[in-house]
Amino acid sequence: MYFRNLVVGVNTLVPLKNGKLTRYINFDNAATTPPFINVMNAINSFAPWYSSIHRGTGYKSVFSTEIYESSREKVLNFVGADSKLDTVIYVRNTTEAINKLSNRLCKDDKCVVLSTFMEHHSNDLPWRGKFKVDYIETDDCGRLLLDDLEGKLKKYDGKVKLVAVTGASNVTGYINPYYEIAKLAHKYGAFILVDGAQLIPHRKFDMKSHSDDEHIDFIAFSGHKMYAPFGVGALIGPKRIFEKGEPDLKGGGTVKVVSHDFVIWEDPPSKEEAGTPNLMGVVALIAAIETLQNIGMDKIDEYERILLKYANHILSQFNDVELYCPNISNKVAIIPFNIKGIYHGKVAEILSDYFAIAVRSGCFCAQPYIQRLLRIDKEKILKIAKNPDSKRPGMVRLSFGLYNTCDEIDILARAIRFIIANKSYFLSN
Amino acid sequence: MYFRNLVVGVNTLVPLKNGKLTRYINFDNAATTPPFINVMNAINSFAPWYSSIHRGTGYKSVFSTEIYESSREKVLNFVGADSKLDTVIYVRNTTEAINKLSNRLCKDDKCVVLSTFMEHHSNDLPWRGKFKVDYIETDDCGRLLLDDLEGKLKKYDGKVKLVAVTGASNVTGYINPYYEIAKLAHKYGAFILVDGAQLIPHRKFDMKSHSDDEHIDFIAFSGHKMYAPFGVGALIGPKRIFEKGEPDLKGGGTVKVVSHDFVIWEDPPSKEEAGTPNLMGVVALIAAIETLQNIGMDKIDEYERILLKYANHILSQFNDVELYCPNISNKVAIIPFNIKGIYHGKVAEILSDYFAIAVRSGCFCAQPYIQRLLRIDKEKILKIAKNPDSKRPGMVRLSFGLYNTCDEIDILARAIRFIIANKSYFLSN
Repeated sequence: MYFRNLVVGVNTLVPLKNGKLTRYINFDNAATTPPFINVMNAINSFAPWYSSIHRGTGYKSVFSTEIYESSREKVLNFVGADSKLDTVIYVRNTTEAINKLSNRLCKDDKCVVLSTFMEHHSNDLPWRGKFKVDYIETDDCGRLLLDDLEGKLKKYDGKVKLVAVTGASNVTGYINPYYEIAKLAHKYGAFILVDGAQLIPHRKFDMKSHSDDEHIDFIAFSGHKMYAPFGVGALIGPKRIFEKGEPDLKGGGTVKVVSHDFVIWEDPPSKEEAGTPNLMGVVALIAAIETLQNIGMDKIDEYERILLKYANHILSQFNDVELYCPNISNKVAIIPFNIKGIYHGKVAEILSDYFAIAVRSGCFCAQPYIQRLLRIDKEKILKIAKNPDSKRPGMVRLSFGLYNTCDEIDILARAIRFIIANKSYFLSN
Repeated sequence: MYFRNLVVGVNTLVPLKNGKLTRYINFDNAATTPPFINVMNAINSFAPWYSSIHRGTGYKSVFSTEIYESSREKVLNFVGADSKLDTVIYVRNTTEAINKLSNRLCKDDKCVVLSTFMEHHSNDLPWRGKFKVDYIETDDCGRLLLDDLEGKLKKYDGKVKLVAVTGASNVTGYINPYYEIAKLAHKYGAFILVDGAQLIPHRKFDMKSHSDDEHIDFIAFSGHKMYAPFGVGALIGPKRIFEKGEPDLKGGGTVKVVSHDFVIWEDPPSKEEAGTPNLMGVVALIAAIETLQNIGMDKIDEYERILLKYANHILSQFNDVELYCPNISNKVAIIPFNIKGIYHGKVAEILSDYFAIAVRSGCFCAQPYIQRLLRIDKEKILKIAKNPDSKRPGMVRLSFGLYNTCDEIDILARAIRFIIANKSYFLSN
């Protein structure tokens, strides 16, 4: 596979439970991705030039500053942002991006943020306590109900400040109709934030013009989910939002003039990037973006759809496999499942111990969504709350990256067959 | 030099203004440091194993989790923290660490935080607005006045929650008597935070036992100032401080159980590390710590003192060089200076253009300290505030790292002589 050669560590051998070395299969790309070889090369090439940015006068400092500041244009371009009106603020990850936005949007008590039932905790918890938060409903399959969105926008009668919605679910892979959501949000005077953590690495994305009804106001994403795991993510949105008021993190780089009596803050984005920035992380992110663009996001999308379709086809042939979202027409390459009668954590453990297949199991930092998909009632949730370390309902999740292959899915098929065939053994061991 | 071989890019050639390639000399280590070769090796070796931590079940995930969690013990050991009572929270940099602490300490209006006149903005601005902040005075030379500290502790009569003090100044290099400060703080019921950004990379540091009067309650430092520039820093302090209440950043990894009605937060440190952690950054930090420990902090201290002494000796021979802190007995290797009659920014520019020497000039994110050292009155400060982009009083700063050499300081001496000899030319060009 061509794409396979782009990624570090795809042929690593790891020991199975019996000690035999086997090639590792990583189906946990929704959590984090291994680095591109290009990313490692970029970091190694840049290392001798790494230096202080902004206020240093040496050659390397000027060069480092140029690398850092010119990166912004590349990131803005990558998502179709407007480099005149928008700014990119470098953060650690999507979670920090959303927290930052939650600290910088208007915060009077009357403001409402609409999150959804399908959000990752990181696009739910940051809004709580700071805004009135309501959740847009999903259908039985876990897809967002646009009627409910419009109903809530109407109900709150102009008080909704922001619709905060995932681009693609990290549990079911469903891609939200974000342009339609944007149109609705704007119709009722709200902004839209797309949590792009699971979307941006997998599909071409365009924020569209600020004058377009379908314009995406804010987008957040993480380098570590797009083959650049060096502690950098991005929050992109209108500069003007960050111009007024105090930044949430204060300190070096955020100010123009300071005495003990007053502060004159820097302009964004500097104002929002307190302390020495993670320049190496930004170098990694840019290398990843360039690699993704050189492949072509459409090609990545097309290829990952093949993986999704193939894996879905394979899994749906097992009667003992429970699939939660059979319709795969508008999804990124994520499949949650269970094997009937076996605890999700046990399945994940067997896949690792006997086949060197890495997956994630549990609730994927989206407990309210899982509670809904698995129809867990309040009583059961309270029982879990009383004993958080006990076993709890959940799923096994496959999430593919561009370097995964159908061969690897064939090995998964064997593994599932093996688990089902040996179910009684595993239930007693 | 033995130490020189440990650092990436020490022999890089860069163009002078006349185009001639010359070996770069970096005297801006207080801003940020180039990576250790060991750090790059650690990252490259680890890259094939990089994987999701905490909730992944694959072999690489388990391995990555082990690397991440076992790193904490190493960081705690490095500063003599108590691994039972203390916790290390990984952050992006010292600035974020101090902001985090400012969000997690009690915040009732009556609480006082004592900062000082010699602090970096990052150990001043985060406290403002959240606490009543007062500043411990410095003498004419920029050294902290312990009498004033005790006076203020008395004056606030048990209301001082925290004494937030730098370990070593990023402007003058002065090392504060943090154990004496700790004793005083504790006597009046306050915690002490040491901003370790400029101290930890250069001197052996010990938080001492929790039962010791001289115990340091909180320490913060940055990887990027200790040869691991990959977006990781550390905040270390008592676990119990982070056990109660909500974390400042919310989202993935911070919770045990969540519904739309309630949240049960994780225990620290996980609770305080929202989103996917910067594992690569942590790998870099540990490699840097191990390298520093292998050299021996005392040896580093000893060697950097030689550089400091030598540079101070050289500079003090020029009548036209203004030195602000002639007493170098208790300093890290930082020297601020000016050449009489030439703007600090111009000196920095000439050093770079004609000698490939990198320094920093200006106020070093410590404007109140510079205002005091240079005796800038309020009127002048207000004038600067009205025109923040205009020229302003400041200094040129030399800050050495363990890879700098006396040979490099000899080149600096030549450069200073050249600038003084050509002062009139540079003043008119």
